Amino acid sequence: MKLLDGRSMAAEIGRGVVDDVERLREAGRVPTLAVVLPGTDAAARSYVGVIERGAAKVGVHCVVHELSGDTAELVATVDRLAADDEVHGLMVQTPLPPGVSATDIGTRIPPHKDVDGMNPLSLGRLALGLPCFAPATAAAVLEILHRGDIKIAGIHAVVIGRSPVVGKPASLLLLAEDATVTICHSRTTDLVSIVHEADVVVAAVGRPKMIGKGFIRPGAVVIDVGTNVTESGLVGDVDADAVASVAGALTPVPGGVGPVTTMLLLRNTTSAAAL
Amino acid sequence: MKLLDGRSMAAEIGRGVVDDVERLREAGRVPTLAVVLPGTDAAARSYVGVIERGAAKVGVHCVVHELSGDTAELVATVDRLAADDEVHGLMVQTPLPPGVSATDIGTRIPPHKDVDGMNPLSLGRLALGLPCFAPATAAAVLEILHRGDIKIAGIHAVVIGRSPVVGKPASLLLLAEDATVTICHSRTTDLVSIVHEADVVVAAVGRPKMIGKGFIRPGAVVIDVGTNVTESGLVGDVDADAVASVAGALTPVPGGVGPVTTMLLLRNTTSAAAL
Repeated sequence: MKLLDGRSMAAEIGRGVVDDVERLREAGRVPTLAVVLPGTDAAARSYVGVIERGAAKVGVHCVVHELSGDTAELVATVDRLAADDEVHGLMVQTPLPPGVSATDIGTRIPPHKDVDGMNPLSLGRLALGLPCFAPATAAAVLEILHRGDIKIAGIHAVVIGRSPVVGKPASLLLLAEDATVTICHSRTTDLVSIVHEADVVVAAVGRPKMIGKGFIRPGAVVIDVGTNVTESGLVGDVDADAVASVAGALTPVPGGVGPVTTMLLLRNTTSAAAL
Repeated sequence: MKLLDGRSMAAEIGRGVVDDVERLREAGRVPTLAVVLPGTDAAARSYVGVIERGAAKVGVHCVVHELSGDTAELVATVDRLAADDEVHGLMVQTPLPPGVSATDIGTRIPPHKDVDGMNPLSLGRLALGLPCFAPATAAAVLEILHRGDIKIAGIHAVVIGRSPVVGKPASLLLLAEDATVTICHSRTTDLVSIVHEADVVVAAVGRPKMIGKGFIRPGAVVIDVGTNVTESGLVGDVDADAVASVAGALTPVPGGVGPVTTMLLLRNTTSAAAL
C-alpha cells in the first residue's frame, strides 16, 4: 500500500509558492491573504492558526480579522476587504453566525479573490470548466491524485458526500479530468457495493472510520477527506488500519488532505496576486 | 412498458401556465419572453418557431430578435433586453457566432431573467440547491420523472453525457432530490455495465440510437434527451424499438423531453414575470 503523504506534497507545493512569492515581491507586490474569523469558535481559531503559520513559512502576508460574531460587522468587513486592492485572497472561515449563509457571504467575495471558492459563481464556473478557484479541499483531492501519479481519465471515481465545499466540487473536478463519477450520500442505498466498484474513493462524509475494509476493492485508491475530532484525536472517515490491507494507496489523517488544502489556499493567493 | 408522453405532460403544464398568465395580465403585467436568434441557422430558426407557437398557445408574449450573425450586434441586443423592464425572460438560441462562448453571452443575462439557465451563476446556484432557473432541458428530465410518478430519492440514476446544458445540470438536479448519480461520457470505460446498474437512465449523448437493449436493466426508466436529425427524421439517443421490450418506462422521440422543455421555458417566463 502506498501512503499518499500530504505533508511532503504540501512541502513540495510550498517550494513553488516560495518562488512565486519571491517573484511577486521583486515586482513590488506582497501577496496578501485576508482571513475573516467571524466568531470565537475554538476549532475555527485553531485552523486559522494553521493557515497563519503556513503563510509565514512561504512568505505570504496573512492578516486575520477576528470578529465578535456580529453579522453586520462580518458583512462590512468582507465588503471592505473585497474592495481593498492590497488584499489578493479573501476567505471567511466557518462556522458563520446564525442566520448568515455561506452563499450570503460567498457572493460578496469577488471571484478573482475567492481563493477558497465560496462564491456560487466560482462553483458555476467550475462546473463549466472555466478558470476559477475551486474550494481548496476539493482541489487538494485532485492535487494529491496528480502528485501520487494516479490515473484519473477513464477511471471510475466514487465520491461519498455531496457538500458544496468538498463532494460536489471534487466530483466536478474529477469529471473535468475524464473520470466517470458517482456521487453517493446519506440517502444512497447499497453504499458498500457502489463504493466497491470504485478505482478511486473520495470519502467526505464526516463520520469517523465509517469506510471500512468491505467498501474497498483491492488496489483502489482512497482519499480520506474526513477530519473528525474524537477522544482519540483527529480521525478520518476511513478506518485506515483496516483499509490499509486492501487499498492500493491511502491518504493518512492527519497528514493527508489537510496540509495540501492549506498550501493550496496559499498558492491560490499567489495566483490571485499575479492576476 | 409505460410511455412517458411528453406532449400530454406539456399540455398539462400548459394549463397551469395559462392560469398564471391570466393572473399576471389581470395584474397589468404581460409575461414576455425575448428570444435572440443570433444568426441564420435553419434548425435554430425552426426551434424558435416551436417556442413562438407554444407561447402563442398559452398567452406568453414572445418576441424573437433575428440577428445577422454579427457579434457586436448580439452583445448589444442581449444587453438592451437585459435592461428592458418589459422583458421577463431572456434566452439566446444556439449556435452562437464563431468566437463567442455561451459563457460570454450567459454572463450578460441577469439571473432573474435567465429562463434557460445560461448564466454560470445560475449553474452555481443550481449546484448549491439555491433558487434559480435550471437549463430547461435538464429541468424537463426531472419534470417528466415527477409527472411519471417515478421515485427519485434513493435510486441510482446514470446520466450519459456531461454537457453544461443537460448532463451536468440534470445530474445536479437528480442529486438534489436524493438520487445516487453516476455521470458517464465519451471517456467512460465499460459504459454498458455501468448503465446497466441504473434505475433511471438519462441519455444525452447526441448519437442516434446509441443506447441499445443491452444497456438497460429490466424495468429501468429511460429518459431520452437525444434529438438527432437523420435521414429517417428526428431520432433519439436510445434505440426505442429495442429498449421498449426491457425498459419499465421510456420517453419517445419526438414527443418526449422536447415538448416539456419548451413548456418549461414558458413556465419559467411566467415565474420570472411574477418576481
